[in-house]
Amino acid sequence: MTEKAPLEFYFDFVSPYSYLVSERIDALGAKHGRKVKWRPVLLGAICKALGTVPLMQQTDKSGYSERDFARSARFLGIPYAHPEKFPIASVAPARTYYWLHERDCARARDYAHRVFRAYFTEGRDISDAAVALDLAVAAGADRAQVEAGMQEQAVKDRLRKETDDAVALGMFGAPWIVVDNEAFWGADRLPQIEKWLETGGF
Amino acid sequence: MTEKAPLEFYFDFVSPYSYLVSERIDALGAKHGRKVKWRPVLLGAICKALGTVPLMQQTDKSGYSERDFARSARFLGIPYAHPEKFPIASVAPARTYYWLHERDCARARDYAHRVFRAYFTEGRDISDAAVALDLAVAAGADRAQVEAGMQEQAVKDRLRKETDDAVALGMFGAPWIVVDNEAFWGADRLPQIEKWLETGGF
Repeated sequence: MTEKAPLEFYFDFVSPYSYLVSERIDALGAKHGRKVKWRPVLLGAICKALGTVPLMQQTDKSGYSERDFARSARFLGIPYAHPEKFPIASVAPARTYYWLHERDCARARDYAHRVFRAYFTEGRDISDAAVALDLAVAAGADRAQVEAGMQEQAVKDRLRKETDDAVALGMFGAPWIVVDNEAFWGADRLPQIEKWLETGGF
Repeated sequence: MTEKAPLEFYFDFVSPYSYLVSERIDALGAKHGRKVKWRPVLLGAICKALGTVPLMQQTDKSGYSERDFARSARFLGIPYAHPEKFPIASVAPARTYYWLHERDCARARDYAHRVFRAYFTEGRDISDAAVALDLAVAAGADRAQVEAGMQEQAVKDRLRKETDDAVALGMFGAPWIVVDNEAFWGADRLPQIEKWLETGGF
């Protein structure tokens, strides 16, 4: 039996709906024999390239959005506490993710969960390189190695490339999930993704 | 037993996700003992007031959006054919709706369904006053009376007032559904609305 193509999960670590999907996508993939490629990108850079404004920064919608983030989390049964500092930069954890990913995919996955949960359940400032580093250490990485790794040009280039690739794929918001070339935007598309996986497209 | 408050369904006749909700909201309300107030408004005017751009006019997203309109319709089992002329103005059917509604609520509801389906399954140009009128006649209204009615200042004022009221409620996109003061934006919130109705809030 040929292995099915993995789901592609593009996200930003400070996107609430990305966090919600991060708590569900692996189980959803596994149920249908799919692995999931996790790809943190910088939504701010994507929106800048497109000349748009990320939902997280659309202040006219922030009242509704904050309510919807929390309500959507309750609907899905996922813990959520809207961070006091929101939104913040996600460069530090995204770079750290790719440095870890080059060395140990499983550790990088564990790290990504730790970052999301630190921000969206404990309100920790994941934009702070020291926090991003502490979380890598909590995931079992060596502090000195990660600290040096976060500064490597290769890691910076990788994050830029993944962000460019996401734009090329059509991504304009987060999360962006691709199933066999079909793109889905948002945590609210999880039921459609599930049906797509069940039926092979509808 | 006290009658429960009706659901409030604010929409624009040329909004695809509004059309999808229009095909489900009455049955959903009835299942939970709720009537539904249908309120067509002008999303273009709302966005202008807020200084935003309706999703329907965000050309950078139009490729994804068109795909998602049709896919969401298939997901819900609702016929959908993306209109060739899109988006178009919805002033004519919205005014006609309120004129009918003042006289016969049931006919206005029937009319609203006819307008949505004419646009989203047959691609008819509902921005054309003659088409808006034909659909009113198909719903059983008198042609000459509706034709005169569409020009009444009271009808123009009513549409403007409903649009202003929607802004005051916080509406920035369509459809906008309010359940006991809780606002839901988008057809993809139907499952949350159902849970809200079942549980009285979660």
